[in-house]
Formats: sequence, C-alpha cells, structure tokens
Amino acid sequence: MSARPDTAVAHLAFAELQALLHRIFVRHGTSEAVADALAYNCASAQRDGAHSHGVFRIPGYVSTLASGWVDGKALPEVEDVASGYIRVDAKGGFAQPALAAARGLLVEKARSAGVAVLAIHNSHHFAALWPDVEPFAEQGLVALSVVNSMTCVVPHGAQRPLFGTNPIAFAAPCAGSDPIVFDMATSAMAHGDVQIAARKGEQLPEGMGVDSQGQPTRDPKAILEGGALLPFGGHKGSALSMMVELLAAALTGGNFSFEFDWSQHPGAKTPWTGQLIIVIDPAKSVGNRFAERSRELVNQMHEVGLKRMPGERRYRERELSAQQGVTLTVQELEQLRTLAGEQ
Amino acid sequence: MSARPDTAVAHLAFAELQALLHRIFVRHGTSEAVADALAYNCASAQRDGAHSHGVFRIPGYVSTLASGWVDGKALPEVEDVASGYIRVDAKGGFAQPALAAARGLLVEKARSAGVAVLAIHNSHHFAALWPDVEPFAEQGLVALSVVNSMTCVVPHGAQRPLFGTNPIAFAAPCAGSDPIVFDMATSAMAHGDVQIAARKGEQLPEGMGVDSQGQPTRDPKAILEGGALLPFGGHKGSALSMMVELLAAALTGGNFSFEFDWSQHPGAKTPWTGQLIIVIDPAKSVGNRFAERSRELVNQMHEVGLKRMPGERRYRERELSAQQGVTLTVQELEQLRTLAGEQ
Repeated sequence: MSARPDTAVAHLAFAELQALLHRIFVRHGTSEAVADALAYNCASAQRDGAHSHGVFRIPGYVSTLASGWVDGKALPEVEDVASGYIRVDAKGGFAQPALAAARGLLVEKARSAGVAVLAIHNSHHFAALWPDVEPFAEQGLVALSVVNSMTCVVPHGAQRPLFGTNPIAFAAPCAGSDPIVFDMATSAMAHGDVQIAARKGEQLPEGMGVDSQGQPTRDPKAILEGGALLPFGGHKGSALSMMVELLAAALTGGNFSFEFDWSQHPGAKTPWTGQLIIVIDPAKSVGNRFAERSRELVNQMHEVGLKRMPGERRYRERELSAQQGVTLTVQELEQLRTLAGEQ
Repeated sequence: MSARPDTAVAHLAFAELQALLHRIFVRHGTSEAVADALAYNCASAQRDGAHSHGVFRIPGYVSTLASGWVDGKALPEVEDVASGYIRVDAKGGFAQPALAAARGLLVEKARSAGVAVLAIHNSHHFAALWPDVEPFAEQGLVALSVVNSMTCVVPHGAQRPLFGTNPIAFAAPCAGSDPIVFDMATSAMAHGDVQIAARKGEQLPEGMGVDSQGQPTRDPKAILEGGALLPFGGHKGSALSMMVELLAAALTGGNFSFEFDWSQHPGAKTPWTGQLIIVIDPAKSVGNRFAERSRELVNQMHEVGLKRMPGERRYRERELSAQQGVTLTVQELEQLRTLAGEQ
C-alpha cells in the first residue's frame, strides 16, 4: 500500500491522458473509433475540472464493457430522414461515436435548413453532456441537447423514483470569448457528485434526495442505496425532467430511464436510452449578429454584478490544465495504468 | 360602490367572454385580426384558471394601447428563410398575431423538414405562453417556445435585476388524452402572480424575491416597487433564463429584457422583445409511436404516485368552465363591460 496520501496529485499533458484512456478503452473491448470519442470526452471532463465525469468514470466503463451490456464495437447507422432530421441507431453502443458519425451531416443540415435535429436511440450515455454541444458553438451554431439516464429521481409530487438525472446542455457562440455553455442535471444534484460525496464520506446540502423510506436525507449513501434524488427547483425542474424523457426517449425511439433491465449484466453502469440534439444556425437570424448580441448579454450580466458565468469554471480549469497539465490523483493515475496493463 | 363582496362571481360562456374581450380590443385600437388572437388567448387563460394571464391583464392591454407603445394594427411580415426557418417581424405589434400569420407555414415546414423554427422579433408578448404551443400538440407535433420579457429577475450570483421572467412552454401529444403541456416562468414566481398577491395583501413563500436593497423579502409590494424576483432553482434556473434571453432575443433579433425604454409611454406594460418557437414532427421518429410512448410515460408517472400531471389543473378548470361557464368576479365583469363601453 502506498504511503502517499489520497490527495497526492499528478499532472499529465492532455494528449498523454487522452492516449492513456484510449489504450484502456481498446484493451477492454472498444473499436478505435469508439475509443477516440470516449477518450476525448473523458479527458476533456478531467481537464476542465468536471471530475464526476472525468477519470472517475473509467472503472464504470471498464466493468460495463466486461459485463457485455454495451457493444464497444457497434457501428452506428445514420439515416438521413428529412432536410432537418437525422436518425441514428447506435446499435447498442455508446452515444458519442453515434454523434461523431452524424456530426458532419448535422452541421450541413443546420446550415442549410436553419435548424436540424439529431435523434439517437439504442445508445449508452455515461459522460458529461457539454462536450457534445460545445463544438457546435465553436462553429458558430447554437446547440441544445438532452439525454435521459436511469431511474433515480422522484417526480415532484410522486412517491417513488422514475426519471433519470436527465441533463440539459446548451451552447452558443459569444463574440470575443469562449462559447457560452452550460450542462445541468435536472436532478437537484448530478449522480456522479453524489457518488463522490459518498466516497469522501461527506454530507449533502438539504433538499437533494430521499432515503429508501422516501424521507429527506443528507446522507449520499442513503440516496445511492435504495433512496433517490429529487428534481432541482421543485415542480419546474420535474417538468423539465419529464420533457427530457419525452425528447430523448419517446421522440428518438430510445428507452425511458425506467425501461431497461441490466440485472443479467453485473457491473453494467451505462444507461441504455436515447439522446436528442437540436442545432440552430443563427446566421439565418435578422442581421446575423448573434455572437455580438450574446456578447452584449454577457457584458450586462457582469454589469449587474455577476462574478462567474455559467460554465466559466471549466474554461479556467482548462487554461490551468494547459499550463501545468491535467490534474488527477496519483492513485487515479496508478489505477489507469493498471487498467491499461502498463504496470 | 357595490355592496357585493369582491369575491362574488359571475359565469360567462367561453364564446361570450371571447366576444366581449374582442370588442374591448377593437374599441381600444386593435385590428380585427389582432383582437381575434388576443381575445382567444386571454379568454383561454381565464377559462383554464390561469388567472394571472386572464382578464386580469385587460386593463394593462388597454393602458398600453392608449400609451401608443404598441401598434394594435401592425401587420406582421413573414419571411420564408430556409426549409426549416421562418422569420417574422411583428412590426411593433403583438406576438400572437405574428404567430398566427406564420402558423400554417410553420406546421408545413415542420412536417416536411422534420423540425422548424419560427423566430419572431419586434413583438410584444403580454400573455400566457401555453396557448401558443398547445395547438401544435393537438396536431400531433411537439413544440417548445421561449419568450423574454422585462428586467425583473436577478441572475443567480448577481446583485441587480437583468433578466425577465422568461418563460419556457412545452407541448407534446399523448395518446388517449389531452396533450402534455407546461408553461413555466424561469423566475421563482410569475410576475402576474406577484401582482395578484400584492393586490390581495398576501405574503409570498420564502425565496421568491428581494427588496430594493437586494435583501430577501416575502412582501410582494417590496418586490414590485424597486425590488426584484429571483430565478427558480438557483443557478440552474438562472442559466435557463439566460438561455431564454439568447434564444428569444439574440437569435430572433428582438430586444433583450433590459433594452427597451418605455418611459415616454406612461401606462405601457407590454415587454417589447422576441419569441422563438421550435416545432418537431415526431412522425419522423423511429416507428412513429410518439403519442403512445408519451402515454406510457404518463402511466408510469401515475404508477409512482403522481397525483397531478403538469398542466392537468388547466384541463380540469377547462372542463368545469365548459359545464358552468368561465368564472370571473362580478367586479371584473363590470370592469370589462365598462371598457367595452357597454354600461
């Protein structure tokens, strides 16, 4: 056992972390293309300080692949349905390679039709959502995405869990700066953050979840073991979570958060649902000044005393990572090297 | 002065209320087409028990028209920009007739392209948002709309108000029942509900707003007179409110909630901003089973103990109104008749 404390940190260049994660994915049964998409996503989350979706997720990916629950070599099937509509059957694989397979066509359609929808079904999403939308904003487009997950949230006014954490992510260009990007679970807290708190033995703030008896609790373990999360913002967050189920599952042809059964796949962690992405081309708007207007809004937000824009922390962490490398604990790095079969 | 208590009620058939409101609008300077759209919207809100957007709004409409702030006879200009994109310049008139002018084309485009966007700018929206989206769901389509309003909400983490109440409305078909429809202010409370509480002398729940010093208050008058509302759900509701500014104003070419100056128009009440509507055709989805799937979700929501679906109260009130007529207070009815010049 190492004498180093759990908090000792290591730094890795982004490309090096990405390559290490890529080797892990391939070693545990994904194709090169799938490893590309997942390693980029996961390394990006770690780089940007979004630790609940960073290397913390790797053991879950590995145990899921080992369980046979997800097809790490699935070839997504892209269908061009209409001038603004693409369907992708992820074939039981991950959602990110499905998006990657259709991204070019989606951008082309959004620019031509003014708006386009990408409806992915039969897909597994186990990652942060903002890396899916941010690239559209970097290309001058506005993007909105929703993905449903697995039953762990009690609808407002109900007794038992039904919805997933069902995040909504949004990205828009902003003149003279990084895009405006947010990614929010419609649950009071992201599932990964509850797991991290449980691991650290920390109590949660009030109002995050209930125990197995449906009673309010601040104990993350009680939420994870038979309990459930609550939606954020009461009945409004709950309605948004319902909307995510409708858009990401009913509309795409994917499973609702409560529909899949992974009991025959011990170790499986990835929700097998669907994802919807809507991309709008602001060049179609009057005067084509979206990015400048978005800048004006941000300026005014600072003017009324806002210290930090939504998503700004990620950009700061990204800059820091560019200077000193991506931070992870020594323990995590050792675990990754072991999973890569390299020590 | 009437001896009847303020709470004495009258009942009017929906068509009768609609006709009465229509006469008021025309008498105060709107065209027939504009009166059609507004009377339908406002009578629907009253019928469905959404009182903060029912006949309660009529004096505000009237004083706004009298102030010259809005053009009650504006002819919206519809531009067919791309296979999935329509722009409408409302020409300084109301948003509802602008939507009405483009509705047919919007449905046609959504069915053909799979998704279509309607971007309205230079428009005034002073009404409930759900009547704008519900008809799409009745036609088997999924619709999402956002509209920004006027500065009265402090962004999470800021000191002073900037955003409007910025509602989001969503509508989706559901097999064997009324569409699933919700309409939520991204503020902790709708502005009209604060006004109603102030009028009734009621205290608000905690967390709705701040006074002119930025201190939390439960007094609706303190919020209305120099104070401000808070977003719902902390930083998440605040991010959604920002998204509404970006979609409804930056993207459409409309004003942000903080941009218009109505100081030269005493009596003006209607925010002069923009509105975005996204309509998706679920017939393009795999298997074309959206309405059935949506039914399955609703069934499961009841299964886990949900007593009342989002929007269900409106349908109940609507049914009641169909039986006994639309309820309003005797005082309100007298005021309406006076505004119509009929007593």
